Amino acid sequence: MTDPVGPVDATRVPRFAGPPTFARLPRIDQVAPESLPAAVAILGAPFDAGTSYRPGARFGPGHVRASSRLLRPFHPGLGVSPFAARQVVDAGDLALNPFDIAAALGDVEAGVGSLRASGARVVTLGGDHTIALPILRAVARDAGPVAVVHFDAHLDTWDTYFGAPYTHGTPFRRASEEGLIDLRRSVHVGTRGPLYSEYDLRDDAVLGFQVIPADAYESAGVAGVAGAMLRRLGDGPVYVSVDVDVLDPAHAPGTGTPEAGGLTSRELLLTLRALAGRELLGADVVEVAPAYDHAEITGIAAAHVTYELLALMATSPWH
Amino acid sequence: MTDPVGPVDATRVPRFAGPPTFARLPRIDQVAPESLPAAVAILGAPFDAGTSYRPGARFGPGHVRASSRLLRPFHPGLGVSPFAARQVVDAGDLALNPFDIAAALGDVEAGVGSLRASGARVVTLGGDHTIALPILRAVARDAGPVAVVHFDAHLDTWDTYFGAPYTHGTPFRRASEEGLIDLRRSVHVGTRGPLYSEYDLRDDAVLGFQVIPADAYESAGVAGVAGAMLRRLGDGPVYVSVDVDVLDPAHAPGTGTPEAGGLTSRELLLTLRALAGRELLGADVVEVAPAYDHAEITGIAAAHVTYELLALMATSPWH
Amino acid sequence: MTDPVGPVDATRVPRFAGPPTFARLPRIDQVAPESLPAAVAILGAPFDAGTSYRPGARFGPGHVRASSRLLRPFHPGLGVSPFAARQVVDAGDLALNPFDIAAALGDVEAGVGSLRASGARVVTLGGDHTIALPILRAVARDAGPVAVVHFDAHLDTWDTYFGAPYTHGTPFRRASEEGLIDLRRSVHVGTRGPLYSEYDLRDDAVLGFQVIPADAYESAGVAGVAGAMLRRLGDGPVYVSVDVDVLDPAHAPGTGTPEAGGLTSRELLLTLRALAGRELLGADVVEVAPAYDHAEITGIAAAHVTYELLALMATSPWH
Amino acid sequence: MTDPVGPVDATRVPRFAGPPTFARLPRIDQVAPESLPAAVAILGAPFDAGTSYRPGARFGPGHVRASSRLLRPFHPGLGVSPFAARQVVDAGDLALNPFDIAAALGDVEAGVGSLRASGARVVTLGGDHTIALPILRAVARDAGPVAVVHFDAHLDTWDTYFGAPYTHGTPFRRASEEGLIDLRRSVHVGTRGPLYSEYDLRDDAVLGFQVIPADAYESAGVAGVAGAMLRRLGDGPVYVSVDVDVLDPAHAPGTGTPEAGGLTSRELLLTLRALAGRELLGADVVEVAPAYDHAEITGIAAAHVTYELLALMATSPWH
Amino acid sequence: MTDPVGPVDATRVPRFAGPPTFARLPRIDQVAPESLPAAVAILGAPFDAGTSYRPGARFGPGHVRASSRLLRPFHPGLGVSPFAARQVVDAGDLALNPFDIAAALGDVEAGVGSLRASGARVVTLGGDHTIALPILRAVARDAGPVAVVHFDAHLDTWDTYFGAPYTHGTPFRRASEEGLIDLRRSVHVGTRGPLYSEYDLRDDAVLGFQVIPADAYESAGVAGVAGAMLRRLGDGPVYVSVDVDVLDPAHAPGTGTPEAGGLTSRELLLTLRALAGRELLGADVVEVAPAYDHAEITGIAAAHVTYELLALMATSPWH
Amino acid sequence: MTDPVGPVDATRVPRFAGPPTFARLPRIDQVAPESLPAAVAILGAPFDAGTSYRPGARFGPGHVRASSRLLRPFHPGLGVSPFAARQVVDAGDLALNPFDIAAALGDVEAGVGSLRASGARVVTLGGDHTIALPILRAVARDAGPVAVVHFDAHLDTWDTYFGAPYTHGTPFRRASEEGLIDLRRSVHVGTRGPLYSEYDLRDDAVLGFQVIPADAYESAGVAGVAGAMLRRLGDGPVYVSVDVDVLDPAHAPGTGTPEAGGLTSRELLLTLRALAGRELLGADVVEVAPAYDHAEITGIAAAHVTYELLALMATSPWH
Repeated sequence: MTDPVGPVDATRVPRFAGPPTFARLPRIDQVAPESLPAAVAILGAPFDAGTSYRPGARFGPGHVRASSRLLRPFHPGLGVSPFAARQVVDAGDLALNPFDIAAALGDVEAGVGSLRASGARVVTLGGDHTIALPILRAVARDAGPVAVVHFDAHLDTWDTYFGAPYTHGTPFRRASEEGLIDLRRSVHVGTRGPLYSEYDLRDDAVLGFQVIPADAYESAGVAGVAGAMLRRLGDGPVYVSVDVDVLDPAHAPGTGTPEAGGLTSRELLLTLRALAGRELLGADVVEVAPAYDHAEITGIAAAHVTYELLALMATSPWH
Repeated sequence: MTDPVGPVDATRVPRFAGPPTFARLPRIDQVAPESLPAAVAILGAPFDAGTSYRPGARFGPGHVRASSRLLRPFHPGLGVSPFAARQVVDAGDLALNPFDIAAALGDVEAGVGSLRASGARVVTLGGDHTIALPILRAVARDAGPVAVVHFDAHLDTWDTYFGAPYTHGTPFRRASEEGLIDLRRSVHVGTRGPLYSEYDLRDDAVLGFQVIPADAYESAGVAGVAGAMLRRLGDGPVYVSVDVDVLDPAHAPGTGTPEAGGLTSRELLLTLRALAGRELLGADVVEVAPAYDHAEITGIAAAHVTYELLALMATSPWH
Repeated sequence: MTDPVGPVDATRVPRFAGPPTFARLPRIDQVAPESLPAAVAILGAPFDAGTSYRPGARFGPGHVRASSRLLRPFHPGLGVSPFAARQVVDAGDLALNPFDIAAALGDVEAGVGSLRASGARVVTLGGDHTIALPILRAVARDAGPVAVVHFDAHLDTWDTYFGAPYTHGTPFRRASEEGLIDLRRSVHVGTRGPLYSEYDLRDDAVLGFQVIPADAYESAGVAGVAGAMLRRLGDGPVYVSVDVDVLDPAHAPGTGTPEAGGLTSRELLLTLRALAGRELLGADVVEVAPAYDHAEITGIAAAHVTYELLALMATSPWH
Repeated sequence: MTDPVGPVDATRVPRFAGPPTFARLPRIDQVAPESLPAAVAILGAPFDAGTSYRPGARFGPGHVRASSRLLRPFHPGLGVSPFAARQVVDAGDLALNPFDIAAALGDVEAGVGSLRASGARVVTLGGDHTIALPILRAVARDAGPVAVVHFDAHLDTWDTYFGAPYTHGTPFRRASEEGLIDLRRSVHVGTRGPLYSEYDLRDDAVLGFQVIPADAYESAGVAGVAGAMLRRLGDGPVYVSVDVDVLDPAHAPGTGTPEAGGLTSRELLLTLRALAGRELLGADVVEVAPAYDHAEITGIAAAHVTYELLALMATSPWH
Repeated sequence: MTDPVGPVDATRVPRFAGPPTFARLPRIDQVAPESLPAAVAILGAPFDAGTSYRPGARFGPGHVRASSRLLRPFHPGLGVSPFAARQVVDAGDLALNPFDIAAALGDVEAGVGSLRASGARVVTLGGDHTIALPILRAVARDAGPVAVVHFDAHLDTWDTYFGAPYTHGTPFRRASEEGLIDLRRSVHVGTRGPLYSEYDLRDDAVLGFQVIPADAYESAGVAGVAGAMLRRLGDGPVYVSVDVDVLDPAHAPGTGTPEAGGLTSRELLLTLRALAGRELLGADVVEVAPAYDHAEITGIAAAHVTYELLALMATSPWH
Repeated sequence: MTDPVGPVDATRVPRFAGPPTFARLPRIDQVAPESLPAAVAILGAPFDAGTSYRPGARFGPGHVRASSRLLRPFHPGLGVSPFAARQVVDAGDLALNPFDIAAALGDVEAGVGSLRASGARVVTLGGDHTIALPILRAVARDAGPVAVVHFDAHLDTWDTYFGAPYTHGTPFRRASEEGLIDLRRSVHVGTRGPLYSEYDLRDDAVLGFQVIPADAYESAGVAGVAGAMLRRLGDGPVYVSVDVDVLDPAHAPGTGTPEAGGLTSRELLLTLRALAGRELLGADVVEVAPAYDHAEITGIAAAHVTYELLALMATSPWH
């Protein structure tokens, strides 16, 4: 029986068996409390009541975990062993009310806040992008306004949607208004596709974001995009938010509002890798909607992105 | 160009082309207003914010329409031509706010009420089962409490779900409390699967429903089930609510809360057919979640169920 | 290397390997010519230019062969070993022009006729139902008008479709007009779903067919349906035509014009089995459209139906 | 965070969140050891190296667990609350070597034996049917030869397959030879499809099994089949082995060796239900191959079958 | 009810509801006739009888429309609002006979011609590539021979296929022979994969086409390919024909004759964008076969390509 | 009837019909024995008992053949007609025991060896990567240690897996130990994803391999990667082993251990093409697991890769 025995002996337990945690990491209750300070926690936020089109991201955390079973503990690109460098645990899923957006956002903020209060940095698996707002509230509460590197096909800075202020199209608008974001250092990467009007871009610029569209990968390559991102970011800590729809539908069919012309998974992973050595305060990987996935194409991409973020945590200064 | 030309000439327009209305019926705006009295209207209610498990029924109306393109105008089992007997139109989709359950329910009630006020009977395509409540409000407003024949794997008479009173698990509880249902003549058909506790059944019985479980088909056959249903129903008008999950997952994979051990589509169609000659005040076909469908198995079943209901309308007294 | 070595040694060759013939039977060119008299030939007719809705039956023969790899040589229900009782071979696919219906029908007639001239009875794998017409021409040429037991959701006796006389909706009308069918002994089994008008049934009856609708299975069971079929058939030889859409979409999603309320695969197999001992002149299994299949649900059903027909051949008188 | 908190509060935790145990039961390590006597344990055996055709049952246990999330704690058909009647736990997955059949079988026997030694009865989720042999070894070690009710499309009493004695086609032959089965009281239910030769049936009869083929459901109904099964079984304890391919491919596409003409999930559940009150020593549900499933059709059927077995445990005498 | 109310109020109507026109544009019959001059019309040509391999493009227009629901009205890359710049309407589907290639081609020519006669430019949604011939006939009738930029994995300049002159492999050969194409300015982009013989390329060159193979994207990038395309095109008007199989199967699985080694959707969109400012006389997007698509990967790519063409129309001179 | 007639007349036989050999090549038994010297043989090795995660590559050879039906005989990129330059045949499938890894490896070695003894070079279709070991044994037996260009996401030089020395993760370790590989000239191309530890890379380097990771395509392009590969290879013959998981999951979902961040099919084909003119002793294309494929995305990529290898054979010196 493999589930109860704690950390997995990879030489004995086949990857198709055993504990369905992210990358087969220990569950948070299997870890001695005193080791938690300075740990990294994976947290599921199964919530999609903020979705405007294809719902289903409520099943995202479980799908990304299932798609993470092949991950191994050493990252050759960065030369780090993220699970050895830091105590990394799977903190399970938040219990989020699917019928009450406000209540759910409160529970996300409380859950992330509680983990952070114990000294952990949190990588949240969505759920839809609405959850970025309460996460940023929890982060900014103790860290102040943070620079956000936001990978997404969309700006997510709309004002309201059907009159609703809290949806997956509005988190960065709300977070900007609430002063949670260090806008002069923040950037959208990978945007593309048509907008409602030219005012979308103007509004976004007024808020203070910079935009590096997906097309820049064609003209400038990963190196060019990463360079622009790092220049924008400057020094100081960063929060990374990855909407899986930043990937092309070929690389991420399992998402709610796909747009053609997106990134390959290789481009996304290598752009993230350029953040090595930065102080990474937290991150999220959102909008994985498994009902539209096939053979875990999307789940595997999201799992590797999550792993890349954990590896960045291992390279991150830790104050 | 086939879309603009109104009623389709079936001898000229291939079924894979042309207007994506239900069974290629005319849109409501293509019909002279004076013909509307005594008409039957198909109405889409793309709403799934009341869903507790697999969401996606918001795409249900479009999917059922797409799956209805092979339907033809004569029903040999009942010997009627439903589109000739009555003016039947496709009234399009309601614009329902996915982020505000209360507002959406109000809009469903208003939409159905407005069609009924024009003299039409309405067959609503869901959407999740939450919409049965506002539909019954609209029906009962002028027809008084109605007998409900409810095909479903579930009772849908729970009290609340995560504290929410209006979800897809509660419409018949709320409708009972609001006095919209003639409970002595109402019946659940096809229930099965585990419950939360024995109180679920007791509560349901206290409300006044009768239960004919799915297992009755094995012991009594369609004739036995239909007989029991008709005895319960007695004389008088009826509203029929079909949750597509009354079908076995083999016959309806594309739904949100599937349960093994369900009906075949043949059993469901023939049980419905036993209602011929009854006064049918309205009906709904709900919980079609296309992201989980394959090759329109579920969509075709739902389209045939909808067609059966339209044929019943043609046999219905019309006061 | 398994392909070249002729009849497969089932104790050595895994079923996922080796020759992709039906049930791993020998190809016709691996059999000594003198053994062909009295043989049964499986013949592929990959043709779907007669399809009115979902095309793709051109890939049907290959799909049914791939789905037949688990078939074994002894039929316990009938107590026969069909491949031992008769020389059964896979005659490969006809080369049918997808752009010229008339030419393709001629080639089907020639191909079936040529095999029949060598003494073989032919089980044809479609392809759409259009091919039943040229097959019946080939059969009737030497056997005279034949009784047809026709399993199908549809009557297939329409007159024309978009003005075209030769489509998958018309083969039995044309065959009737050409005098190929012994109509007093012929029967449709499994029909259901709406028709264009009441004249469809009347026209069909005028031609002379009898109809046993799918609903009869609910009221009379397999025994009742089989009894009615056998009474209609009386004595004398028979041709069996199986449109896979006679099955419910749950049992055969992979087809072109599915209708809810159909047969289970068990009902179909047992109804066919009732034909044991009849003189079976030939048969077809048509309308398998693999692009809409899942996990070979449809392919396996069609393969078992084909095997049932081969077992019936083993029980058939052979004049 | 829901994972760590033990038994799930179903009024708070959405079913798409939280601990991925069977029916959200507690993990075995969350239960005080002294409560284990008289418990029932769900045990995963992710092993498919004994598969002759479509592999993938190694992913079966996880898939059945994921498909079990909608299960609730009260069984209305039997009027029992299986999780209240007995301590029921999820014992996780065995770590089984995919490259060494003999070693894996030894580990299955040890794992089941260890749970039984603690007083638990075990319901094992396969994996392929090879695992029935070591389970029966563990059961017979303390309970002596047991009557086996075996639901399966196949006999699984072949001698060897490619020379290998331990495969998913041979467990009941080996178990019979090893004296683990009370053959005079044992029965295959649901067999169908072609065999290698008439000797397959003869061999099986020589061993001592009785066969109730799938066709019996058409002629005798569930009541008839269940009656015959109970007559064969007589008094005394029983072990139940359910190969999910006993279901028709429409009801269980996600399996390795599907055969047309099978059971509906309703037939299977009701036949199992007839075993209420019998002493149930253990059970398995095997051959779920998720790569071939769609929308959890197969997973849900298997989860309901597993739940039915747990409910039978609640009605079982307990010596 | 959203369907009847004309242009959609995007702030009120969810994108999963409402009128299934392309990008929720008005239907042609909702637009006052006097506004039609200078309009752009989207026209469906559901026809696939010219397909040599996987059929199903007859369902293409509906699929692209369904996949276009997320499109918004402002194109940030070109800085234009295509629906504001020009009256853009959805003209519905042509009624094309699936059994008579010649008749269907005549109806395509008539339909496109009629729209053009009213002053509209037409973007046609296929359908298979056969339809490019009658479209070019309609265009050339009033515009004379046109330069064609042809995106495709294949040359489509074969002579005949199974003796048939009008298939999806021959439109540009026929169009060249009929003098419809300004060959000195025309170019194939994205060709790849094996050919029948070296004469295919030679024949194509003799006709006068230039070839920019898909491999050029690897060596020259989008900028290099676009530069070569523009040099070839020179000044003057252009017709753009996009076979969706120019994309790699990863980006367009839903097509009839896929070839590995193709374009990403980003490459295709950016290459098209280089045509900004050119006089665009018309365009087509063909060979979308939805039965092979997954999660609208192909449909979304085709919808974005269509939108790119509409945006190009907004930048186009308009004589 | 097309199967028996030998080489296919491509102008008459539709590609969806006829003999299911690779690219419709003749079967080996249709070729006169005296023509075999200097031939190239395609050989299926349906074996997946060495798979550590998703099994199913046993169905790989049949799937690649089915996906190869659109291949045509002229390669425009290399300007060769591979089937005209050399006699190329399909040698069918090896009969490999799924329950006995050692026996299967012996049969692979014998099968490849026997074809090589007749003068043929062999392109083997897997099957999992375990088969590379016995193939290299057969090649090295007469050719001595060979340089291996190994395209793969993984190193495949692990020592053991669950104690098993012969699995799909170990072939190049074993082959290195057995002296079958000219390690100074060998190279892994396309590796990526996390490893067990830094020792994995160190061990691999100790063996003597060079690594060109997938990321090199982003920084150096195909030209850069191909240049490094050719420099490593130097002069002399080469064996090419292509694990289809070298492709990104978007381009090859149908495989057993997918990793994000992989190659496009265009990058892979063009890198292979750089080997033109080298002496190619043999090759394999492995790890195609069809149960996870969609619309033949993976199968088509593998078929084109196989065709590229056959074209390289046509450019290869032939001693």
